[in-house]
Amino acid sequence: MVLIINKPEDVSDQVLQGATFLHSDIIEKIPNSNIIVQKHFSKNQVALIGGGGIGHEPSDFGFVGDGMLTACVNGKIFQPAPAKEILRAIKSVYTKYGVLIIIKNFERDLNVCLEAEKLAREEGMQVDHVIVNDDCSIEKRDNYKKRRRGVSGTVLVHKILGAAAKEGKSLAELKEIGDKVVYAMNTLGVATASGTCIETPNKPLFELPEQHISYGVGIHGEAGYRVEPFRSSENLANELLNKLIDFYDVNEESQFAILINGMGATTAMELAIFAHDVSRLSVLNELNISFVKAGSFLTSTNMSGVSLTLLKLQENSWLRFLEAPTSAFAW
Amino acid sequence: MVLIINKPEDVSDQVLQGATFLHSDIIEKIPNSNIIVQKHFSKNQVALIGGGGIGHEPSDFGFVGDGMLTACVNGKIFQPAPAKEILRAIKSVYTKYGVLIIIKNFERDLNVCLEAEKLAREEGMQVDHVIVNDDCSIEKRDNYKKRRRGVSGTVLVHKILGAAAKEGKSLAELKEIGDKVVYAMNTLGVATASGTCIETPNKPLFELPEQHISYGVGIHGEAGYRVEPFRSSENLANELLNKLIDFYDVNEESQFAILINGMGATTAMELAIFAHDVSRLSVLNELNISFVKAGSFLTSTNMSGVSLTLLKLQENSWLRFLEAPTSAFAW
Repeated sequence: MVLIINKPEDVSDQVLQGATFLHSDIIEKIPNSNIIVQKHFSKNQVALIGGGGIGHEPSDFGFVGDGMLTACVNGKIFQPAPAKEILRAIKSVYTKYGVLIIIKNFERDLNVCLEAEKLAREEGMQVDHVIVNDDCSIEKRDNYKKRRRGVSGTVLVHKILGAAAKEGKSLAELKEIGDKVVYAMNTLGVATASGTCIETPNKPLFELPEQHISYGVGIHGEAGYRVEPFRSSENLANELLNKLIDFYDVNEESQFAILINGMGATTAMELAIFAHDVSRLSVLNELNISFVKAGSFLTSTNMSGVSLTLLKLQENSWLRFLEAPTSAFAW
Repeated sequence: MVLIINKPEDVSDQVLQGATFLHSDIIEKIPNSNIIVQKHFSKNQVALIGGGGIGHEPSDFGFVGDGMLTACVNGKIFQPAPAKEILRAIKSVYTKYGVLIIIKNFERDLNVCLEAEKLAREEGMQVDHVIVNDDCSIEKRDNYKKRRRGVSGTVLVHKILGAAAKEGKSLAELKEIGDKVVYAMNTLGVATASGTCIETPNKPLFELPEQHISYGVGIHGEAGYRVEPFRSSENLANELLNKLIDFYDVNEESQFAILINGMGATTAMELAIFAHDVSRLSVLNELNISFVKAGSFLTSTNMSGVSLTLLKLQENSWLRFLEAPTSAFAW
């Protein structure tokens, strides 16, 4: 597969420059950095920072904007920025209300973010974090939950905390909301075709036989839990939704938000058809869907496939936060 | 390649049902039809209708909304709706201000739309049309321009005419603006990988050797004008931009709008990097870009690649129309 890039080593810089060219009304890039900052961000609220490796576009710069992230900081392809760069991002948006870092649960991401947080605290800054670990393909709830990866549900955390921060919630309140949201959220992904290694054109991220799909695959090509022939969108929706529902006690009062995420090369046609199947199966399962969104939000280069996130709306405010307006262009 | 669908014969209906499930606040589907209508559309303006075959999502339902299309009508995969179905769409949004149909220039689309227009006029309705033929890969300007296909520039026509209609322009004025915009617009596409035939999984839309790209390819897999090995995003941007600039007299006063369109499976990373190259080459070519937008707007199933549209902004109002707000979810 061809990827429309120049030299692989220039991808990080050029993708961020391209994004700021396309959305110069909302975001800007701090020169000589991989830090994207919201233009004219509010100084009267907690600032939110996201980030990670390159190769997951439009994450996270597409979610920088009023009512979502204040800034994001990227490293290289599939690699988070070093702690010092994250510290620089913290300083670039720091206000007296403090900074909250939203971390996707991967060992490297966690290490650099916690190191940056430590450095910032040593300089007297108020910084805290929320760790997103929504990928339920690895372990059952409460069983080594810390090993679960942070995937597309992160976008819902950005949205909920972004709207809550704009409403004036404190750093401690945001951390509490974030932790609750993460605990109430589960995501399961499926790849229908491997993406391409950015560094090595022609080399797939992983091997997948023709007309086969891989359940539970990670956003960096980590192995899934089952490979089988593709049958239908409905079959796929059924597998994902059933596995996700298993994590919840569902009753008449339960309300859910759903995120359908394209993995990179997934088409709007496929997302709509899959959404239709999710919709029908939700009715059959008596699952109340209060909020639904589909798009390619957190991707893995040009991998094809979808992930499905289920979030139980345990507080009424969460729906309000999800529905609040934002200027972030990829929401 | 796997496409996440159910039976190919159910694609049209299920993709439209999925779209209305996802965007029930903006659009609705007329039962037992492939017609999508804007909810609560204004009765105090000309209604705009787009449409064509299925397989080009989010076109055109993603552009139905306040300030863009009033309705769209689809046929089957890569096939426009029959004239009677288009007539039904006309009637479903008809007001005393009339209806304008925006037609992509393909023989079948043109035939059914003009037939529907004739039937509507016979019933005493005011209906007119604009034919979009922005694809300049086939012929030089003024040389058989009518043979040029209608491709991604159509989205700019939807946006400009949608905002103009909302401002209260008459049917005759909208047709005049539309014809002028089409004449000032050129698009050139390139495929970096063939998409999949929806009806026949595993069968590509066309053959393209590994690591090769095809310039000038059509949105239904029509042959392009040159196949060559992929070199770089910059090389590709240079080829497309140079060919497009050739159609214009560029001077200091010239202002352009640019649309960068993903062909279906193109990633946000690639679009941003390609946009960065277009941006740098525009500066080198002293091309003033007043408006730029990138995304996957008019696609060809899961084809990879991009198309670049250049529109010379001959009237100041065009920029205002492009920048006006709309509720259409895919803009």
